[in-house]
Amino acid sequence: MLELLYEGKAKKVYQTEKEDELILSYKDDATAFNGKKKAQFVGKGRFNNLITAHVFRYLTTEGIPHHFIETLNDTDQRVYKTTIIPMEVVVRNRSSYSLNNRLGIKEDTIFSPPLVEWFYKNDTLNDPLINDQHVFLLTDVTKEELNQMYNQTLQINDALKRFFHQIDLDLIDFKIEFGRNSRGEIILSDEISPDTCRLEDIHTKHHLDKDVFRQGTGNLLDVYQIILSRLEEL
Amino acid sequence: MLELLYEGKAKKVYQTEKEDELILSYKDDATAFNGKKKAQFVGKGRFNNLITAHVFRYLTTEGIPHHFIETLNDTDQRVYKTTIIPMEVVVRNRSSYSLNNRLGIKEDTIFSPPLVEWFYKNDTLNDPLINDQHVFLLTDVTKEELNQMYNQTLQINDALKRFFHQIDLDLIDFKIEFGRNSRGEIILSDEISPDTCRLEDIHTKHHLDKDVFRQGTGNLLDVYQIILSRLEEL
Repeated sequence: MLELLYEGKAKKVYQTEKEDELILSYKDDATAFNGKKKAQFVGKGRFNNLITAHVFRYLTTEGIPHHFIETLNDTDQRVYKTTIIPMEVVVRNRSSYSLNNRLGIKEDTIFSPPLVEWFYKNDTLNDPLINDQHVFLLTDVTKEELNQMYNQTLQINDALKRFFHQIDLDLIDFKIEFGRNSRGEIILSDEISPDTCRLEDIHTKHHLDKDVFRQGTGNLLDVYQIILSRLEEL
Repeated sequence: MLELLYEGKAKKVYQTEKEDELILSYKDDATAFNGKKKAQFVGKGRFNNLITAHVFRYLTTEGIPHHFIETLNDTDQRVYKTTIIPMEVVVRNRSSYSLNNRLGIKEDTIFSPPLVEWFYKNDTLNDPLINDQHVFLLTDVTKEELNQMYNQTLQINDALKRFFHQIDLDLIDFKIEFGRNSRGEIILSDEISPDTCRLEDIHTKHHLDKDVFRQGTGNLLDVYQIILSRLEEL
């Protein structure tokens, strides 16, 4: 039995026999609006595990450092152990309804350069937006590291746009998390999936992401299946 | 009759006979929590008008550019016309309950350097926190101008700390606004008063500011009178 280190809304994290490796086990739960909306979708864990694996393998070819090692089975993947920085890094290539609600910026406004936002990862506080100075107060990230994270985030955005364009999807926005590995380096961690990206089909203009669950506009499993199928046909 | 250009929560703004000069007329209304709590305090307008005048005259001696020209009577002051940048600039030397509520940073945490935050001045959206990139999307402020505003804000903080120390007050935090004048320059505008600063008596540790109204812990007029009296005795 592996030791369960942490159970989040969408994943369980286990310690492996190797000190600096973990297993992420993707759950079938979907949550939205900071856990206020919840549901179970049997098979969702598999989709996010396999899609995330496709994404990270692509990022390897782009030279972007990350925590992913390999998939173990339908729902589990092996990753390097990192201590997650309590920041959600959000990148927006285009404005969505959530930014319209918060700042009155019209939906579908194009951001060039992309808009990068930091949020403090804290459920009790509802993941509030923070600025650079808050980052230094609330985390152990230095000014130099934050600059590196910002530049890396833009590289990841460029890579992800290319990745999803291969399967006819426009990357509207996404959330990533970084973690500090055993050597003290900050690297891309967590998952990258339709749970964490807003993706629009370039032909139909339909959303193929968790918004179908958030907004009740479609069947989550059908949509995630489309993405995985397209990736497997590449 | 002067033309009323704008009526805010605490002031009326009139156009004068001179194109680039305005009259600010301070009202007796007090509001808190974005207008959710309201009251009238007869004489408050006079206090804020006269206290703000003391502050701006001090800032002149410190070489800080601003919009203030002169007081005209108990409630009115003449200022250079500026177009207000829709940003509230908040500077915190020490954490208050509001930051504790928002970010979980313990009350009375000392910030060195001071924590500077931008908020988007928009009542409908509840004046949300914004980052530098939001500033460029939501206002006409350039990157260079934002840097200038940041540096000027730190100078204003240093000057205000010295100003209030003269009357035995510690400056916990404050809000300022900038405006663009007829030459296109961004200068300090609006008011600086116990409505916009958190001030603590260095001896009694009592708040002498609008928190007595926000929190219902004291008589606003008594407190503002203490500040004006101390300034008049300098």
